[in-house]
Amino acid sequence: MQSANHIQALQPSFIREILSAASGSGVTSLAGGLPATELFPMALLSDAMTSISGDNAIFQYHETRGYPLLVDYLANEYGLKHQDLMICTGAQQAIDLLARVYISPGDKVVVEAPCYSGAMQAFDLAQADICAVSQKINGPDLECLETIFASGGVKFFYAVPDFNNPTGSCWSLGTRRQVAELCVQYQISLIEDAPYRELRFSGQPLPMVSEFCPDIAFVLRSFSKIAAPGLRVACITGPEKWIEPLIKVKQITDLHTSTLSQAVMLYVLQHSLFSDHLDNLRTQYKSRYEAMVDAIVRSVSIEYHLNDTQGGMFIWLRLPGRDTMAISKAALKEGVAVVPGDVFYRARSNEEKALRLNFSHTDEANICRAINTLAKVINKH
Amino acid sequence: MQSANHIQALQPSFIREILSAASGSGVTSLAGGLPATELFPMALLSDAMTSISGDNAIFQYHETRGYPLLVDYLANEYGLKHQDLMICTGAQQAIDLLARVYISPGDKVVVEAPCYSGAMQAFDLAQADICAVSQKINGPDLECLETIFASGGVKFFYAVPDFNNPTGSCWSLGTRRQVAELCVQYQISLIEDAPYRELRFSGQPLPMVSEFCPDIAFVLRSFSKIAAPGLRVACITGPEKWIEPLIKVKQITDLHTSTLSQAVMLYVLQHSLFSDHLDNLRTQYKSRYEAMVDAIVRSVSIEYHLNDTQGGMFIWLRLPGRDTMAISKAALKEGVAVVPGDVFYRARSNEEKALRLNFSHTDEANICRAINTLAKVINKH
Repeated sequence: MQSANHIQALQPSFIREILSAASGSGVTSLAGGLPATELFPMALLSDAMTSISGDNAIFQYHETRGYPLLVDYLANEYGLKHQDLMICTGAQQAIDLLARVYISPGDKVVVEAPCYSGAMQAFDLAQADICAVSQKINGPDLECLETIFASGGVKFFYAVPDFNNPTGSCWSLGTRRQVAELCVQYQISLIEDAPYRELRFSGQPLPMVSEFCPDIAFVLRSFSKIAAPGLRVACITGPEKWIEPLIKVKQITDLHTSTLSQAVMLYVLQHSLFSDHLDNLRTQYKSRYEAMVDAIVRSVSIEYHLNDTQGGMFIWLRLPGRDTMAISKAALKEGVAVVPGDVFYRARSNEEKALRLNFSHTDEANICRAINTLAKVINKH
Repeated sequence: MQSANHIQALQPSFIREILSAASGSGVTSLAGGLPATELFPMALLSDAMTSISGDNAIFQYHETRGYPLLVDYLANEYGLKHQDLMICTGAQQAIDLLARVYISPGDKVVVEAPCYSGAMQAFDLAQADICAVSQKINGPDLECLETIFASGGVKFFYAVPDFNNPTGSCWSLGTRRQVAELCVQYQISLIEDAPYRELRFSGQPLPMVSEFCPDIAFVLRSFSKIAAPGLRVACITGPEKWIEPLIKVKQITDLHTSTLSQAVMLYVLQHSLFSDHLDNLRTQYKSRYEAMVDAIVRSVSIEYHLNDTQGGMFIWLRLPGRDTMAISKAALKEGVAVVPGDVFYRARSNEEKALRLNFSHTDEANICRAINTLAKVINKH
């Protein structure tokens, strides 16, 4: 039996192959996008499970929109009405539902280049025409963005303004305002994906882009990076009339997200010690980030560029003119997994030669060892 | 912003409206497909949560195929290799993934008439051409089935051979063999959806249809009806080469199913007391079924038909020539929610006039009261 044509057209995922190899024993992985397992808020998670384990209602079917107590809590947190909100099985599901509900084959979706590959895969699956806009130091190239917006047929602009995956970059305040203005002017829906926003460990927080264009924006908030990804709980917010069709299709997709996961997440988010957990997480990630930068500065001897990164989980190590795919393969042989920048681009043309390095999942000592090994491979190429 | 055309074409779901109204206070619902909340295996679920709450690995990202310990356990249970298996966020997700991966617009999917509406919605979303085959007392009309198979362009035959939703009927052994033979002869993939199979409370278990055509069948096993639906854990099995593309698309859909849910489900399924829980569940459902039949026999005074039902969660109360949609609406006003048979048919032509009555979610006393009220409404029509 053959898959449908649009499935057969899906690109093989090189990142999947790398991650599979990276899970082998003896490999230090800087490749994935995993938070630190040892920093999960285990006391809160355990308390949550003890506290709710006698409540048989959480084991029953529930509303597709989400576990009502979590929906109410989040609506209150975000200053929204509950109709503007839906719980998803991870933010990946929100992206997939947006693509399924709103994209007809050939509709344009604008993304930053480079861009989170899981988002591009979801848009591909919906047979969108993916248009890429280069990232500059302060955010997307606004001139290029407006040109594409003006060309017509654009359904979404998908972006990660806070600590981009893969580059770690953060849009300036001016860029945020200007992107919002362009979205309003051309009536193009913004998808603001914000999984890393709470992971700022230096610099000043900036308003979300969607705050400047709330009537035309979806916001995806994941709890995977700040609490625990294994629960698969995230939240999408947006105008009520745009959330409604998403609920209709989510019902067909999985009826609803695990209520157990939602109830555990609610307990954790509401707990008075959750903010301490977040503070600790930011402190630890800052140390890991600094350890990684120090190790790179100490050990890489060919030309490279690093941007100042103020949060998130990734460093984007640019290596102009180098074959980063070959470097990634060679590093894997030496026991260090990294992701070549290529996989975050759609068109294989204007891509920056770079490596995405994850600093959240590995402790300082192993980061230093891994970067030393990686640097030897890089310096040889 | 408009939804994509194929989303706009989705039928409004009358069952959703009924279920929404049925959740109001003062309404006894025989409408949903909910298991009994008070019969969940709470001791096992609580033990599971205590037992796993210190294991930080279950809160991390995991393989898309499923939590490896659950995958191994189920593969062993079913006598399969783990490549033949994938965990889903409920069996609804399995249906949706099958539709997304294998159906191109216009491909035919054969279903029984009547049919579980959630399956038809998923096939609709993939723009399948849904072809319905009438149910007879022993299963689908085989002559009609072969005619459709022979007409070409058929991708799937989707069926619930054990205690069908909505009719509660169970295919005979002969029908099982003959359907399998037809699937093999015409090389049409069977989707055997078996959420109610373990809920047999009388009669002898029969082999699964897929046992007669394993090379051409998917099997969907849900743990929602035998353990707890709020966990959203189910399993799809089938030939390795057919499971592989499903994993690729599931990764884009939600990365993986809640690992917490999977770990809890593994603990419950493995527990030595789980079979006692299942025995108790069957005993209780048998009592509820009998209470409902008794109440119908006692109180309905117009012509009706009931089949002998040996398991599952539903009674199909046929009311020849009656306006069951109007009866459902009138019953809701009297505080009893039921589902009119209409919603389980695609073509609004050859449908049987019937009501689907759920006996699993309500205890005997309330079943009797609800049926008495419903009977008054029926007798008046």
